[in-house]
Amino acid sequence: MTDASGKRQIHFSLLSMPTLAHNDYGIWRHPESQKLRFDDPAFWAEIARLCEESKMDALFLADGLGITDSFGGSFDVSLREGMHVPVIDPGLVAASVASVTAHLGLAVTAASTFDPPFSHARRMATLDHLTKGRAGWNVVTGFIKNAEDNYGVPPASSSAERYDTTEEFMDVAYKLWEGSWEDDAVVADRESGVYIDPDKVHRIDHVGEHYRSSGPALWHPSPQRTPVIFQAGMSERGRLFAAKHAEVVFTASGSEPDTYKALIADLRAKAASFGRRREDMKLLSVAAIVTGEDDEAARAKLATYEKWTRPEGYLAHVNALNGFNPLVHDRSETLIDALRTDGFKRDDFSAYIPSPDITVGDYMDIFKAVGNMPGTFVGSPVKVADQLEEYLAEYDLDGFLLRSFLYPNSLRDFRDYIVPELQRRGVYRTEYEGTTLRENVFGVGQKRISERHHASSFRLAPISA
Amino acid sequence: MTDASGKRQIHFSLLSMPTLAHNDYGIWRHPESQKLRFDDPAFWAEIARLCEESKMDALFLADGLGITDSFGGSFDVSLREGMHVPVIDPGLVAASVASVTAHLGLAVTAASTFDPPFSHARRMATLDHLTKGRAGWNVVTGFIKNAEDNYGVPPASSSAERYDTTEEFMDVAYKLWEGSWEDDAVVADRESGVYIDPDKVHRIDHVGEHYRSSGPALWHPSPQRTPVIFQAGMSERGRLFAAKHAEVVFTASGSEPDTYKALIADLRAKAASFGRRREDMKLLSVAAIVTGEDDEAARAKLATYEKWTRPEGYLAHVNALNGFNPLVHDRSETLIDALRTDGFKRDDFSAYIPSPDITVGDYMDIFKAVGNMPGTFVGSPVKVADQLEEYLAEYDLDGFLLRSFLYPNSLRDFRDYIVPELQRRGVYRTEYEGTTLRENVFGVGQKRISERHHASSFRLAPISA
Repeated sequence: MTDASGKRQIHFSLLSMPTLAHNDYGIWRHPESQKLRFDDPAFWAEIARLCEESKMDALFLADGLGITDSFGGSFDVSLREGMHVPVIDPGLVAASVASVTAHLGLAVTAASTFDPPFSHARRMATLDHLTKGRAGWNVVTGFIKNAEDNYGVPPASSSAERYDTTEEFMDVAYKLWEGSWEDDAVVADRESGVYIDPDKVHRIDHVGEHYRSSGPALWHPSPQRTPVIFQAGMSERGRLFAAKHAEVVFTASGSEPDTYKALIADLRAKAASFGRRREDMKLLSVAAIVTGEDDEAARAKLATYEKWTRPEGYLAHVNALNGFNPLVHDRSETLIDALRTDGFKRDDFSAYIPSPDITVGDYMDIFKAVGNMPGTFVGSPVKVADQLEEYLAEYDLDGFLLRSFLYPNSLRDFRDYIVPELQRRGVYRTEYEGTTLRENVFGVGQKRISERHHASSFRLAPISA
Repeated sequence: MTDASGKRQIHFSLLSMPTLAHNDYGIWRHPESQKLRFDDPAFWAEIARLCEESKMDALFLADGLGITDSFGGSFDVSLREGMHVPVIDPGLVAASVASVTAHLGLAVTAASTFDPPFSHARRMATLDHLTKGRAGWNVVTGFIKNAEDNYGVPPASSSAERYDTTEEFMDVAYKLWEGSWEDDAVVADRESGVYIDPDKVHRIDHVGEHYRSSGPALWHPSPQRTPVIFQAGMSERGRLFAAKHAEVVFTASGSEPDTYKALIADLRAKAASFGRRREDMKLLSVAAIVTGEDDEAARAKLATYEKWTRPEGYLAHVNALNGFNPLVHDRSETLIDALRTDGFKRDDFSAYIPSPDITVGDYMDIFKAVGNMPGTFVGSPVKVADQLEEYLAEYDLDGFLLRSFLYPNSLRDFRDYIVPELQRRGVYRTEYEGTTLRENVFGVGQKRISERHHASSFRLAPISA
């Protein structure tokens, strides 16, 4: 989205998770950290207010449904580091801040794999009602084995199979959100006593391979009906899913610019193949900002974050994602050799191989120097703002999904230093434009999902005369 | 519970539902009603604050998972009356008021029938965390056909079968709440960086007839661990379930005192047969209060409630419960004859047959004169307080689950007129005693479920030296 002067407007959401450590391993020990209060609604109220004062689109809450096993099938590292465990229900956390915010979107992660679609669709509609149209849903398909064990479901044979099931899950949800109640079904006529016109409420009678659901939706249409759909699928199948369903896609850059540019271009091309326009999908990049009055102040803060960082958490997180265990190798071995020995493809580690000489020890140390990780911007407000603008233009992105090193200080810094600088440049909102999340992402008037989105095919035909 | 002077202390909770009409059909049209705002968190914040100012144990939120069909399988009456439809998710509504209350319990209804036990147990634990120990769970097993259709599950063959499945569901939840994390599993040692001691977190490895769940619980122990269990089963099997599991049982009186007394006595005897003491289970009776400065003011308010009442809602509600349709009979036919014609047993309608001469028309008119319905107390504060005290003594009850005719006025009246009168008599708290719901129900120090409750059998053995 550009403003009248043609300047590319930047979107921000906060990436967080109701757990101890998400992408900030060990920093909970910083003397000013409030992260131990991740189960306290007052903590989330403060975080949400900071996001809203920073005019972010949304507070985005990640989730997990099982403990990640790392380094040989044990939960020990995850538990010791508080790596995504404990994690409390993000939907309830979002609801707890509904009444202390007025503009901020609340996007919650929920897996399509475990709860029935009717339950899930109802909870999202409830969140959209309670927030008066500020709900978002980050669709994940689940990949943690412990989650399948917790829910007692057999493991999906492949990621592709999970996506197929999820396609049907989405259709059931869209039918309930878009295709069950007509816009004017609630008449609330005090005179006659009629609250709902029964002729305007319809069953969906979904019968599919994985799900059956009769409807009608048990709830009246919420302001957005379908919540704003977030997604982060990066596999080929995941990108196709994102291109069809996601209104906001978030991606993480590696250290090879061309690979990341190709990924962005591919997502945009795939979305176009579904008949969607460029402006129908926002692409955000995961980023972290460390800033202060000047470069020196920013570097000093970074030094304290790195002092408290525990690389063990990052190593376990990455191990859970890609399976590579550096601990069984000698620190002086080259990373490329170690990967080859363990049967990995170099491409999967491109983010970590800036040069062929990098050793296993260097790899492990990456996670000590968190300021060097891809997508981390460190410096004065002017320097960071320059970098953010350049980054968006370079990679053809729409904004950032920000992670925080130190709660709540990193958020205060963003509000106090970066927001005014971006506003001064005319690339960031000074007031929320709309009243719903979708309006703040796509523009005033766009309360409902685009007519070019698959979900709109389930809309009830307008009643013609 | 009695105080030092031996006076029986009365407990109150509010019975409500995030829907238009629950037990207050048509009164949403009253000029002062705020009930149309049932999807607004500011409405629930006001209701919760009124409950807390009235020193109630809990705000109790009912739920339904499908639309009730009445009078021949159609949803039309339910929809027209807004009878339990729309109904938004009560768990999210409860979370939305967590941060605007400090003492009030938040008890939510959730069916054991549809969502996996791991999901449900996690949401309840999250609510208990977000409220710092004020969560309650009203266990229902589901009986609405449309709910089964919405969730695409085959109909349970009987109520008894649902209870058997629910027994296993409870055990999975108890194992996750009581038997997975030791009390001191969270060490949060800033020095060593260890957040959780992995040796104190245990899998549950439940493998049963209906459910499998490995655990560990994904969440750290909440203040109450198991939320306070509410239940209302009235069938023989339901009473057995309540006697084993429920910490708070709520019942509705009919018009025949002896039948109701026998029900209460049976519940207490069954609980004793499970090794539970009298003080381990609180019995509440559903009640409504219409009051004001004096009897005349109370009667005037009742007249406005009855003016706006729609008996259609009550008739549809009762029809959904018992299947009897008065609309196909002549108004002058006796109710007993009409019931016999339709194959019903008189006992099921005892609440509605104060005399054998009552006609179908009289029966339908009962629901116009809502002030005459069983458990309704109308009058000055002194008169109502007298009746409440007598009622508790007469039926051997511990308190009331209050329903409201007019939101929020009925609650203000309770706070302003009844609470001070009961406090003056020394039969009602002037301050909350404890910090958790269970303490406010059972006494200070009773944060955790009683050692005489079945759930405690899943507790981890204390680590001995």
